[in-house]
Amino acid sequence: MQAQLTELAALVDGRLVGEDCAINKVNTLQDAEPGSISFLSNYKYKKFLSDTRASAVIIDSSVIDDCPVASIVVDNPYLAFARISAFLNPGPEIEPGIHPSAVIDPVAEVDASAWVGPGAVIEKHAVIRPGCVIGPGSVVQRHAHVGERTHLVANVVLCHHVEIGSDCLLHPGVVIGSDGFGIANDRGSWVKVPQLGTVVIGDNVEIGSNTTIDRGALGNTVLGNGVKLDNQIQVAHNVTIGAHTAIAACTGISGSTRIGEHCAIGGAVGIVGHLDIADHVQLTAMSLVTKSINKPGLYSSGMSAMPNSNWNKNYVRYRKLDEMSNRIRDLEKQIRQLVESSE
Amino acid sequence: MQAQLTELAALVDGRLVGEDCAINKVNTLQDAEPGSISFLSNYKYKKFLSDTRASAVIIDSSVIDDCPVASIVVDNPYLAFARISAFLNPGPEIEPGIHPSAVIDPVAEVDASAWVGPGAVIEKHAVIRPGCVIGPGSVVQRHAHVGERTHLVANVVLCHHVEIGSDCLLHPGVVIGSDGFGIANDRGSWVKVPQLGTVVIGDNVEIGSNTTIDRGALGNTVLGNGVKLDNQIQVAHNVTIGAHTAIAACTGISGSTRIGEHCAIGGAVGIVGHLDIADHVQLTAMSLVTKSINKPGLYSSGMSAMPNSNWNKNYVRYRKLDEMSNRIRDLEKQIRQLVESSE
Amino acid sequence: MQAQLTELAALVDGRLVGEDCAINKVNTLQDAEPGSISFLSNYKYKKFLSDTRASAVIIDSSVIDDCPVASIVVDNPYLAFARISAFLNPGPEIEPGIHPSAVIDPVAEVDASAWVGPGAVIEKHAVIRPGCVIGPGSVVQRHAHVGERTHLVANVVLCHHVEIGSDCLLHPGVVIGSDGFGIANDRGSWVKVPQLGTVVIGDNVEIGSNTTIDRGALGNTVLGNGVKLDNQIQVAHNVTIGAHTAIAACTGISGSTRIGEHCAIGGAVGIVGHLDIADHVQLTAMSLVTKSINKPGLYSSGMSAMPNSNWNKNYVRYRKLDEMSNRIRDLEKQIRQLVESSE
Repeated sequence: MQAQLTELAALVDGRLVGEDCAINKVNTLQDAEPGSISFLSNYKYKKFLSDTRASAVIIDSSVIDDCPVASIVVDNPYLAFARISAFLNPGPEIEPGIHPSAVIDPVAEVDASAWVGPGAVIEKHAVIRPGCVIGPGSVVQRHAHVGERTHLVANVVLCHHVEIGSDCLLHPGVVIGSDGFGIANDRGSWVKVPQLGTVVIGDNVEIGSNTTIDRGALGNTVLGNGVKLDNQIQVAHNVTIGAHTAIAACTGISGSTRIGEHCAIGGAVGIVGHLDIADHVQLTAMSLVTKSINKPGLYSSGMSAMPNSNWNKNYVRYRKLDEMSNRIRDLEKQIRQLVESSE
Repeated sequence: MQAQLTELAALVDGRLVGEDCAINKVNTLQDAEPGSISFLSNYKYKKFLSDTRASAVIIDSSVIDDCPVASIVVDNPYLAFARISAFLNPGPEIEPGIHPSAVIDPVAEVDASAWVGPGAVIEKHAVIRPGCVIGPGSVVQRHAHVGERTHLVANVVLCHHVEIGSDCLLHPGVVIGSDGFGIANDRGSWVKVPQLGTVVIGDNVEIGSNTTIDRGALGNTVLGNGVKLDNQIQVAHNVTIGAHTAIAACTGISGSTRIGEHCAIGGAVGIVGHLDIADHVQLTAMSLVTKSINKPGLYSSGMSAMPNSNWNKNYVRYRKLDEMSNRIRDLEKQIRQLVESSE
Repeated sequence: MQAQLTELAALVDGRLVGEDCAINKVNTLQDAEPGSISFLSNYKYKKFLSDTRASAVIIDSSVIDDCPVASIVVDNPYLAFARISAFLNPGPEIEPGIHPSAVIDPVAEVDASAWVGPGAVIEKHAVIRPGCVIGPGSVVQRHAHVGERTHLVANVVLCHHVEIGSDCLLHPGVVIGSDGFGIANDRGSWVKVPQLGTVVIGDNVEIGSNTTIDRGALGNTVLGNGVKLDNQIQVAHNVTIGAHTAIAACTGISGSTRIGEHCAIGGAVGIVGHLDIADHVQLTAMSLVTKSINKPGLYSSGMSAMPNSNWNKNYVRYRKLDEMSNRIRDLEKQIRQLVESSE
């Protein structure tokens, strides 16, 4: 799609500096060609600004003088870039209809404006609302409900009774509503605890490929509006994730934990069950959370790799850290005695 | 489903305290309404007992006096709850049959009492035993064998020749029998080592969504009876998991490791290859196991998150822990000399 | 398949020691029966050599005298075993054709020598080259390109425009080309950043089950020739993985990180975004990489589990390691003063 720079500036409430021109795509500062618009958000990339071949760059006001071409000046260049890129790249239009190879139960409700792809399966009493895309190979089990304009890319499974809001995007391999891991021990062997709740997901939620979200045992697993989950995340039964929280890939959240709103959780984090995590908590990659976090802020427990021989030397000492601490206490005592006796 | 409290007490060999009444569902102490039965297992929730609106509660004998309504008294309330909940919530009945969109090879054997859902694929020489449910989009490859009453929920893949026991439950996206990760190095590039074994899974095994279990290289990957695996677990080639072991989500087990019976392994644990883990071993979340464990007990290596600035201050020291240890040794030596010289 | 030992020795440029004989399968030293060929690569298993019932063993020259049966002597027995095993176990032959239940768009190109299985979906402008196997339930979206003899086992999803090289093997549940995790913050809520790049994968690449590889935001995610990925690996947008790098299961690589050639990355490793990892870097299991690694070598940060009570005692100290370091510094100062005052 093509647009004038003035039009794009207006779209993001930005100020146009320089000449108007036609723009038809987006690219990085390094790779842009004439006709492209680029952006500078991370100053690490400022070195590429002077030589860019982009026709225009989205910037903040601090770098106006460094920009060799036209610019759109805004407070948050990355956000403006997101909006302009979406405007220039609207994605393929959906043609409503049901592919002849899809299997729709006679008592499912599929809106006429939805698209149901090849091999998709919609079971009885499922509801597919206007503008939905149920991609190839996806399975929507009985009584599941998919909100307006929600998009299941391919091979997504929604188990029975789950509820997905409007304008959600679920990537391939996502599973919503599988049984939670509830087992009771009977003299050594395990008895399954029926998982009777479901999963309720708000609007504008994106869920990355092969992420799994289990149904509640009693009561529901709940994701608020605007939650963004990356790939291969595991959300256990009865977890609550507050609105506008974003979680990076490979993180696992154990049962009944409540995560607040506007949290930002790094990749491969583990959060044990039955905790409360406050709003606006941030966690760095590979942290393990074993206690509730009551205050906003940045938390960590991931250790950074070093050469293996150094690592091993330190870790050998770590294994005796308690003893080391006792030796320090003993030294302090001896020193005190020496000091006293020398006085 | 509805039942009398006396009937439920008999079902779990429990003692009825209070009046008999009709029960039609289960719920938590907080959310129960009249007609419901609840339970108290974790004493953390005892505070909700006095105000519960449940018609009855499953308890142990220590809290009889605190229970304001009828109760079923047992040794293990959570176990009794699991059984009563299963009795009251029997799940939908399976109607045998093969959906017209399923693809069954002419030389596959599918028992007449099984159900094969839309778009499922059963390849040649596969065997589907009585009472099985092969959910939509599932693929059972050549020579795979699925035991009686085993249930593949949806989009499950059983690769060629794998053997699944009776009464198993495999959640969406599970993959059993993909090739193990066997590669030999040829002057820098990798040559695939054929993976010639298979996977053999016992009875009453539950496997969570998107969990993957690789086939053996030579010999088989084996899961004993009653093993319970949560979501997104990775089991490498030639691993053995003993009967009645339960493993929480996101755990990975490397090749040829043997895990004993009745183990309880926390989430996101990593176990390296070629180890032996004894029976009754328990591991807390995010532990890494690099050596065999010969004794039952609880083992750990996960570090709990703290505020990032504290974490960084400590980790900087950790990186020089060996040096710190040497400084302590030097201090001890100097102190000894000082003490001696002062004598 | 059956072969003479002389023939197998020639296949791997090995030296035959002992009598020629007929060989029809491979097995371990312990489980081999007459007619089998085995191998000794890891000396840990040398104890099984003397009692093996194998008809022949692939060995290196150091153990010729210990081998009680015929042997093929080579420098790298595991590599020779891989080749001989592949020769003796050629796998089922592919019969070209398109299953009637597969859905092929009229403007897709599927070579006549390819096989497209039941329920597979090939969208418009996708290209399936000669000798490909598109297994049951797999989805190849618009404009995706699958190179010669590449094999998608089952329920694999290739999103639009991704490019897969020749002779690749993608296991069940693999997702290539889902959107990268790109979001911009707009006063607390998240705005999606369109993911406009794709994924480009070289030749001879193997990808384990349920591994996910996201498309680039701008520019592509790239895997070089001969890369081997185990199960449940997550590769974020714009990552580059150099040729002949092997990565074990459950590892996650964040956006825009570049990994060199010939690296060997252990299981459950986490690598944060925007880093450079040199060629020939090795990482042990559960390491976390937060800084670029410029030199080849072995790196680590995984901590090994110990009995929980020991672990807790040490970890309590770790939480005050900075303070402990300060106490050591104070001790050193006091000692210096004592020594000086005693002089």
